[in-house]
Amino acid sequence: MKKIGVILSGCGVRDGSEIHEAVLTLLAIDNSGAKAVCFAPDIELDEVNHLTMQDTGAKRRVLVEAARIARGEITDVKNAKVEELDAIVLPGGFGAAKNLCSFAFEGPKGNVQPDVLKLIRDMAAAKKPICAICIAPAVIALALGKDLAPKLTIGNDAGTAQAINATGSSHVDCPATEYVVDRDHLIVSTPAYMLAGGIGEAAKGIEKAIKATLELIK
Amino acid sequence: MKKIGVILSGCGVRDGSEIHEAVLTLLAIDNSGAKAVCFAPDIELDEVNHLTMQDTGAKRRVLVEAARIARGEITDVKNAKVEELDAIVLPGGFGAAKNLCSFAFEGPKGNVQPDVLKLIRDMAAAKKPICAICIAPAVIALALGKDLAPKLTIGNDAGTAQAINATGSSHVDCPATEYVVDRDHLIVSTPAYMLAGGIGEAAKGIEKAIKATLELIK
Repeated sequence: MKKIGVILSGCGVRDGSEIHEAVLTLLAIDNSGAKAVCFAPDIELDEVNHLTMQDTGAKRRVLVEAARIARGEITDVKNAKVEELDAIVLPGGFGAAKNLCSFAFEGPKGNVQPDVLKLIRDMAAAKKPICAICIAPAVIALALGKDLAPKLTIGNDAGTAQAINATGSSHVDCPATEYVVDRDHLIVSTPAYMLAGGIGEAAKGIEKAIKATLELIK
Repeated sequence: MKKIGVILSGCGVRDGSEIHEAVLTLLAIDNSGAKAVCFAPDIELDEVNHLTMQDTGAKRRVLVEAARIARGEITDVKNAKVEELDAIVLPGGFGAAKNLCSFAFEGPKGNVQPDVLKLIRDMAAAKKPICAICIAPAVIALALGKDLAPKLTIGNDAGTAQAINATGSSHVDCPATEYVVDRDHLIVSTPAYMLAGGIGEAAKGIEKAIKATLELIK
């Protein structure tokens, strides 16, 4: 059975993984007959109250909160082994842009969290597929833009697309129900809630993107 | 467009709503062409660390955490209006048994949180369908068992089934991919993670249960 690493960044659209996207990813993997294996970095996040959408000033831990989505079955991403994974998927949410990297604050000059950076680079070097959802292509752009100039989508937001291009990557507009494949670098991306009007629309794009990712596994 | 109230109890299987069940509920409602409207009680919950599965001793607020699943679009359940809803759905997770009622601590002698109790009783009196997933049928059993003796499933766990029966309700064994309908009282239930071996299996039962619930709307 194929093992697909799912890299989470917390639990909640404003300070972690977008929950719908993460669950739809797990569903699409299971429905494809593959096994999802969840990971997250063991770092702090800045808590956002999701009722008021205000920062609370408090901290939570990314790995501990991401464990909610993973029903407790999750591992520190620093222990992820490329040789045990057939592909990886990064769901979106602000956590992808704030916790997995600093794209939310520094745009194309941002850095990727070291353990996540290593995993992405090692997967790319091993010619194993990487799928990124919503804003998570920004993490891939920061990690691989300069070296590989991957083709990616975050939907059609002009400012974000410009920042993606400034990493050396190449942004392609795409609707929520579709996906973009970079066949040279085995990178799949879909806009999900960057564009989706509802969960059904996000699900369509994610389902197709996961299917395309699994088809790229050699 | 039909409006379906989704009653959440937090965000995480051990101290709130089971996240997969809640998201699969929102997906099934959207895919059926209906609109989900999320509610939760504005009460405290006892935080569980989902990495260690240990109580932390800290408190969080049910409504604020449930807002993560609802992407901020959620209302205090005390403001739910039966005349504006066509049906309600209660996803599972320990939050259903610990926050929406005291079934987890007191079994068939437990009480239902007053605002949730009022909504369930008012929906039943208005002959509007109620769907309960996983352990959430225990909330319905406590709310309606004595008066209506509804037919419900929580899967096939003997002890829990016995506690359900002790409320005056009538438990029926059911596999994760199926559901039980009480046509006299318009109550639908499906076991989900009480039995499901994975998210795909839970999704099948939830999708069928939501479809059956929408078909009961008059």
